[in-house]
Amino acid sequence: MKRVDVQRRGIGMVCEGGRSMLKVWAPEAKQAFVCTREDKLPLTAQAFGYWSSELSLCAGDAYRIELDDCVYPDPASLCQPEDVHSWSQVVDASFAWTDNAWENPPLSAYIFYELHTGTFSEEGTFAGVEAKLDYLKELGITAVELMPLAQFPGTRNWGYDGVFPFAVHYAYGGAKGLQSLVDKCHEKGLAVVLDVVYNHVGPEGNYLSSFGPYFTDKYKTPWGDAVNFDDAGSDQVRDFFIENALMWFRDFHIDALRLDAVHAIKDMSAKHILQEIREYVDELSAFTGEHYHLIVECDLNDRRFLDERSLNGYAMDAQWNDEFHHALRVCAGVERTGYYADFNGPEHLAKAYRDAYVYDGIYSETRARSFGSKTDGLDGNRFIVFSQNHDQVGNRMFGERTSALHSFEMLKLLAAAVFVSPYLPLIFMGEEWGSGSAFQYFISHSDPELTDAVREGRKAEFSGFYEDGECPDPQAEETFQNSKLDWNKLEAYPHKCLHEYYTFLIAMRKDLQALHSGDRSGVRTSVTDPSGMLQLYRSAPGQDLVCLFNFTKQQQHTDVPGLPENAILLLDSAAKQWEGPGTAPQESPSRI
Amino acid sequence: MKRVDVQRRGIGMVCEGGRSMLKVWAPEAKQAFVCTREDKLPLTAQAFGYWSSELSLCAGDAYRIELDDCVYPDPASLCQPEDVHSWSQVVDASFAWTDNAWENPPLSAYIFYELHTGTFSEEGTFAGVEAKLDYLKELGITAVELMPLAQFPGTRNWGYDGVFPFAVHYAYGGAKGLQSLVDKCHEKGLAVVLDVVYNHVGPEGNYLSSFGPYFTDKYKTPWGDAVNFDDAGSDQVRDFFIENALMWFRDFHIDALRLDAVHAIKDMSAKHILQEIREYVDELSAFTGEHYHLIVECDLNDRRFLDERSLNGYAMDAQWNDEFHHALRVCAGVERTGYYADFNGPEHLAKAYRDAYVYDGIYSETRARSFGSKTDGLDGNRFIVFSQNHDQVGNRMFGERTSALHSFEMLKLLAAAVFVSPYLPLIFMGEEWGSGSAFQYFISHSDPELTDAVREGRKAEFSGFYEDGECPDPQAEETFQNSKLDWNKLEAYPHKCLHEYYTFLIAMRKDLQALHSGDRSGVRTSVTDPSGMLQLYRSAPGQDLVCLFNFTKQQQHTDVPGLPENAILLLDSAAKQWEGPGTAPQESPSRI
Repeated sequence: MKRVDVQRRGIGMVCEGGRSMLKVWAPEAKQAFVCTREDKLPLTAQAFGYWSSELSLCAGDAYRIELDDCVYPDPASLCQPEDVHSWSQVVDASFAWTDNAWENPPLSAYIFYELHTGTFSEEGTFAGVEAKLDYLKELGITAVELMPLAQFPGTRNWGYDGVFPFAVHYAYGGAKGLQSLVDKCHEKGLAVVLDVVYNHVGPEGNYLSSFGPYFTDKYKTPWGDAVNFDDAGSDQVRDFFIENALMWFRDFHIDALRLDAVHAIKDMSAKHILQEIREYVDELSAFTGEHYHLIVECDLNDRRFLDERSLNGYAMDAQWNDEFHHALRVCAGVERTGYYADFNGPEHLAKAYRDAYVYDGIYSETRARSFGSKTDGLDGNRFIVFSQNHDQVGNRMFGERTSALHSFEMLKLLAAAVFVSPYLPLIFMGEEWGSGSAFQYFISHSDPELTDAVREGRKAEFSGFYEDGECPDPQAEETFQNSKLDWNKLEAYPHKCLHEYYTFLIAMRKDLQALHSGDRSGVRTSVTDPSGMLQLYRSAPGQDLVCLFNFTKQQQHTDVPGLPENAILLLDSAAKQWEGPGTAPQESPSRI
Repeated sequence: MKRVDVQRRGIGMVCEGGRSMLKVWAPEAKQAFVCTREDKLPLTAQAFGYWSSELSLCAGDAYRIELDDCVYPDPASLCQPEDVHSWSQVVDASFAWTDNAWENPPLSAYIFYELHTGTFSEEGTFAGVEAKLDYLKELGITAVELMPLAQFPGTRNWGYDGVFPFAVHYAYGGAKGLQSLVDKCHEKGLAVVLDVVYNHVGPEGNYLSSFGPYFTDKYKTPWGDAVNFDDAGSDQVRDFFIENALMWFRDFHIDALRLDAVHAIKDMSAKHILQEIREYVDELSAFTGEHYHLIVECDLNDRRFLDERSLNGYAMDAQWNDEFHHALRVCAGVERTGYYADFNGPEHLAKAYRDAYVYDGIYSETRARSFGSKTDGLDGNRFIVFSQNHDQVGNRMFGERTSALHSFEMLKLLAAAVFVSPYLPLIFMGEEWGSGSAFQYFISHSDPELTDAVREGRKAEFSGFYEDGECPDPQAEETFQNSKLDWNKLEAYPHKCLHEYYTFLIAMRKDLQALHSGDRSGVRTSVTDPSGMLQLYRSAPGQDLVCLFNFTKQQQHTDVPGLPENAILLLDSAAKQWEGPGTAPQESPSRI
């Protein structure tokens, strides 16, 4: 029962050459028109509440939609050149691609670099990212992950307040800028991952409810009513997001989508929306001959999201594994408050190495209930791990990166812990040189009441921390500027050394099958009591690796049972080579 | 991570001999006591918010629970002899069982008889049901399904307003009465199915929220906040219902549970509560050596509820299939309003015969969305079908049974349609003789405001039908009395004939493998256009059956391709033998 044609976009304004076709869903409207700056043309009612018309608009033309005497931008607008409240602009989505030779690698080859387009470069644009692709290539990463690009209010936002899921933000360079960036990435052998938000829509400029039942009050989410994936009218809401996923792959040559917080997608249909997206994306693959990856952020510890369709699974390719992060950061000494309270350090990190989920059916004090399922049989490259990402950095009051919280020695240990894991590694922009810039929470809403509400909410969230200083104003331009990477520091001490260390780690991971293999059957761990030394064993045919982690500030001595005499020390993170204190012979503090 | 001991009840008052032990969950309470009529004894705080104490109370003793100066009945009370607001009573749940020889048959042998204890017999008690067991046995049914028995306010209620899930209603005969009934059923070779409600608690006498977070506002249900199966504290809520399910099987020898409206159980845990109930019930089976069946009422058309655990399914044994009913009733001429609007008659009935779900992924106008999944590979005896049940009868303004809505000829056709299906047949008490009694919606709340609200809600629901008369007052004793079966009429015309017809049908189904086999691979259908004649083919080795249904009022002529010359007419529902008009030779109106 296919409702969506994977070969071409079927919603919004489709413009090819000098002709265009508009299709919009407005099931309750009695009349619908498309308005240009000069004209107003009626749309024709179609089945299932759609309205459409062939038009003679060209790329660059402004238009809006009028429903029963009210005028709105197009919910499926590809471009909002002024702001989220005003005119939509016709975009010709064709592009002179030069990436015919590009082949999307399997996820097992992905080494993710998460970046926020607005703060990654001084320019804050796609062009700014393009200028750094050689740098990323040399670092060794293989996949650039872009935080959400959908048009949000103003020019400063993490991206999770986007309200036009089809419109690449104008300030970043719009649709053409993104297409150019992807083309360049592919030229350099880099895959592109795009973060998309299908669980909510931002609080300013959200006109979806004026068009149809995009939301349902059957479920509560952190952002209010849930997106309507299983109530009356949900076929059309589902199609809106399915069309969106297909567009990025087909028209923007994106290689993988990272679906934000899918635990907030509430869907009790017999076919879950993620299953349906999977089906359509696979159909697109069959049409284009390309592979596309679907990655989810999910905090349910539920293997159903990864299991195959034949097992009633949602068949997502991979998921973020926050619990690895939490266990790791507790090892590093982060305060055990909030979600960190559930993690005890090395024992839990060892469990994350073995079992992916720490909470795999056991009782969680923070959640006050038993939580999670076992991941037996799921390959390591179904999970993505990190020592920080935008969330864990930005959701602190001051947006401190690990570099502002931990010692240089610890930074190296954190990095190694990620790169020797059986999971796919992700680093957050600037992490590879220990950038000292914060990544703070910033917005640029035009609605003063909303701005105040966000400000107050932010203050309230951190009310326990007032003694540490004033919460940065999310609306202030300065907060945004403070969050930009200061690339001038890259060559300075100790940033240059850390950068070289990351480059070495990445190369080592690529080189050693025992590291990049997702086979978890060879993963063993042990934790030495009471020193808390963690030993991780990884192996592949002909390769047996032992990784020793000392998260304490003291030198530790440890025995490695069965270590052969001809064992080679591949990396010692505390070595003088990496600006460390050096390690006593035959001893191994802070090293792998 | 087993939290519940399947071998004995671990919640509420457990009394054996002269000793008793009380355990109650009250995680927010600062102090807890058990109060008797003379005394007040402190309970001791245990892990996870439980309180417990050994006591010297005996069976029959009254007790209540005091939390921080407020007194309540025990949420897990086994007996409420006065009402839902007052004293709980200690029950010794042991019983002198005589059913050692009983073996619960497989579901494929179940022929269900759904009854409401209060209105099935003049007495309105378990003793009243016991007195009719020989009658049921002679009719040929194999399983007595009891509508919910949990203590509800007053003495008149369908049972879905129960507020003490562990307390068998005092007015019906209480725990001992039920144990005696089950023992007698087993003696006569009848299985017992109990309807239990785990998706909500009734509106009067619900003290659960005074004890703990039994509910969550994360989800909305038709009854308000959802039962908390996946929020903080949900382990203990889950255990409360798991203990309940285990109790019926272990302490009451119930053979199957019918879980009410599981689509209203909202649980996004990695392990769904139904999966966990399945696991514990299987563990109990391993302990007792008995089989127990779990049946769900579910309107999601989602095979996940039936699929095995290894397929991420919930592994329920069977589900009610309302869509078969809806399609059948439209064939019989019921008004196509409400949920009936989605059904077109013979074509959809044919689909239900073949595919179980009519809506198996196709678009539903009533729901305004695509709905359901395919049931390929699921045996026919995973589905339970009926031409009416308490819901479809009682949810009409006047509570009319099919006998008040359809002709005598149609009643016979409806019955046959159910018994020749590849699914498990269920009849609603009195259906087998076309009882003319209504089954109306009745309550007996003590709260006048609530009573008024129910009255007004009922009137509003049927406001479109006012011209047909006044909505019966649900609180009136008369409404309850009108709903009792009038067994005196059984012997009168045409009831006696219909009763014999049902007896014949049931015997025929048991006799013919082609009918009682759940193998759906031999099921074929065809619908003749424009007459609407439906042909159903069923087969087993050496048996090929053709069933012809004429739902019109006209005689129809139909060809049965390939009918051998030696074919035998097994049943003609229009024959004079069954008080019908007779069928012209070689023609087959209203017959199978």
